[in-house]
Parts: sequence; C-alpha cells; structure tokens
Amino acid sequence: MKRLMDFSENERWRMSKLHNRENWENAVREGKADEKMLSLCNYINSTKNFFTSSGCAGRIMLLGLYGKGTKEESYFHRKWHRAVKFAELWRGLEAKSTGTLWFKMEPFIIHIGTKSLGDADSLLNVMRNAGVKRGGIIVAKKGKCIAEFVGTQSISLPVKKGAKILIEREYMKQILDEANSKLRKNYELLKRLEKAAKEKLE
Amino acid sequence: MKRLMDFSENERWRMSKLHNRENWENAVREGKADEKMLSLCNYINSTKNFFTSSGCAGRIMLLGLYGKGTKEESYFHRKWHRAVKFAELWRGLEAKSTGTLWFKMEPFIIHIGTKSLGDADSLLNVMRNAGVKRGGIIVAKKGKCIAEFVGTQSISLPVKKGAKILIEREYMKQILDEANSKLRKNYELLKRLEKAAKEKLE
Repeated sequence: MKRLMDFSENERWRMSKLHNRENWENAVREGKADEKMLSLCNYINSTKNFFTSSGCAGRIMLLGLYGKGTKEESYFHRKWHRAVKFAELWRGLEAKSTGTLWFKMEPFIIHIGTKSLGDADSLLNVMRNAGVKRGGIIVAKKGKCIAEFVGTQSISLPVKKGAKILIEREYMKQILDEANSKLRKNYELLKRLEKAAKEKLE
Repeated sequence: MKRLMDFSENERWRMSKLHNRENWENAVREGKADEKMLSLCNYINSTKNFFTSSGCAGRIMLLGLYGKGTKEESYFHRKWHRAVKFAELWRGLEAKSTGTLWFKMEPFIIHIGTKSLGDADSLLNVMRNAGVKRGGIIVAKKGKCIAEFVGTQSISLPVKKGAKILIEREYMKQILDEANSKLRKNYELLKRLEKAAKEKLE
C-alpha cells in the first residue's frame, strides 16, 4: 500500500512538472511569456524540485469595468508590461472606451509548484528572506504543492467615466511617475527574488 | 520516538490555541478588536480545530509616506474601519501633514491557525467556495499551520504632497464614493465567509 501511494505521488509530481515545463516552453516560443520573468522562470523550471505554473512581472494598465465590475464584466483597454510614457497613456485615455476606466499599477505575481510540503515551506522562507512579504501555499496535495507570491506595490484609481476624463493632465502625469517608480521597485524585488532562488533552490 | 513527537505537536498546538485565544479576549476587552470581525473571530476561536491570530475587516485611510516610504517611514494620518463621510475626509486632508499622503481603501485580512495541514487545506476550500480569491498557508509546521486570507477590493492614490492637495474636491468625492462602495462589497464577502465558516468549520 505504501509503495502504491508513493508511486501515485511520484507520478502526480512527474506529470505536473512535465506538463508545466511544456506550457512554459510553448509560452516562450510563442512570445507569450513575460520577458522580465524569462530568466527567473527558466531557472526555476531547470531545477529538480520546482516548476512555475504562471507569472507576470508587474504591469500598468487602463482597465475597463462595466456592470458589477466582475472579471467577466471587465476588459483591458490598454496594458503594458513595462514603464509607460505619458503621451501613450493619455492617448489611451482619450481613445473611445465604455464603462469606467481604472488606472492600475499591479505588482508581480508568480506561482511555483513543488513536490513536497517541505520544499514548499523552504520556498516560503527563501522568498521571505528575499523581501517578498505576501505569499503562501495555495495547493497542498500529496505530490503537488503550489505557492503563490505577490509583490505589494500598487496603485488603483478610476480615471474616466463613459466619455468623461475625471482627472487633470498634470495629476495623471504625477500618478504615472509614481506608477513607473513603483514598477521599478517591483522589478528590483523580482531581481532579489531571482538571486535568492538561484542560490537556494535546487 | 513517535509518541514524543506527537506529544510535542499536540503541545505546540495547545499552546498556540490558548495563547491566541487569550490575545483575542484581551483585544475584545480593551476595545482593540475590529468590531466587524467580532462575530467571525468569536466563532472561529470557539471551534476545536481553529483560532484567529489577527484580523482587520477592511479600512479607509490617509497614509503618510516620507523618505523611501517603507513601513518605518509611514504614519496613519487618518484611519477609519467604516464608511467615511466626505466632510471628515476633507478635514483630514486639509489638516497639517508631512511627506506624501495616500488615500487608500484596503480589504479585509485575517489569519487563521489550525493544527494540521489537512485542516488548513479544508479551510482553503471553504474560503474559496465562499468567494475569497486570495489566500494561502503562510506557516506550515507540525502542530501549527497559519493561513492568510485577503479581500481583493482596493483603491490607492497619492492625494497630497507637502502642503499641496493634488486633487479637486469633486474628484475626491467620486473616489470616496467608490471606496465606500468597495468597503460595502468587502463587508458582504466577509459575511459570506462567516456563514461558510459557521457551516463548515468545527
């Protein structure tokens, strides 16, 4: 019985690792992977005991919300995975949109899979030591644990309702400066996280 | 050896449960517990297998940041654990402050302790079914697991730099309406979470 269980745990782990590595390689090939995550995710997927199942290095966007503003009632009006210039942001703001547009700067998010709870627990420690404050194990099955880590830098405010822009150009400029600066800090944390992962995860 | 380990796990659990219940009872007695968390936390602390170690039902605030804006370089200029009236917010905004003031609406956060990983995993399922999207196990020791759950409603924007208010009264009103509305939605989710906890956790 013991051997059977071990086999099915090992099997679950082997399948997860393989499946997620294929997904990652496809995403890279198709240019769908977030460039700023390439180096970190490539490393993690090259380890014996860990894989990445999804990741975004952080982004700035104009998010459209209508109705109750659920995920199904929202759309990306503009989305950038990099620092943004004021002119392109303002052009996006002036372009035709429906519902309420929110300006948002969101931090990185990454999901990392491991075989054992022990490995997941080590991962939590590595991340915390690297300065990542928000993270936890969101799946804890035998043979498959997944931990989620999220940065803490964020900005979120409504900027347009229907056809009416709610804020002054000058203020939008200040907000964008803050957002670009927070995105930079967020990338720095991601670099520290990558360094820690390369030193500690096998 | 097995019995010794079991004993120490049980002992760790017993101490954690006792310690956190005392902390909770003291907080309630001293009026430091968040009123909107009373019913949920009282219930969880009355169960056999769970305890709460901290919780905030959500808040609206004016947060002052200076220097690098780390936790040590920040202060609560104003903080409310309830819906806010425009007059009191604007008074807070006009009152003398230093550094940059950020207007923030933050969702609930709660930490729940359990003895076993199995219980922590059940807890994740209960929370997810109640509609809580962000949560995970942040401590996974033998005899003590802690899970963290966080709402997803938030607003965050800079509103004053030094003595200069950056935004128009009318816009601040709109933002506050949004914040109060998000706080209400956040309280509704907390109620669903409480209902689920009472049905499923023992």
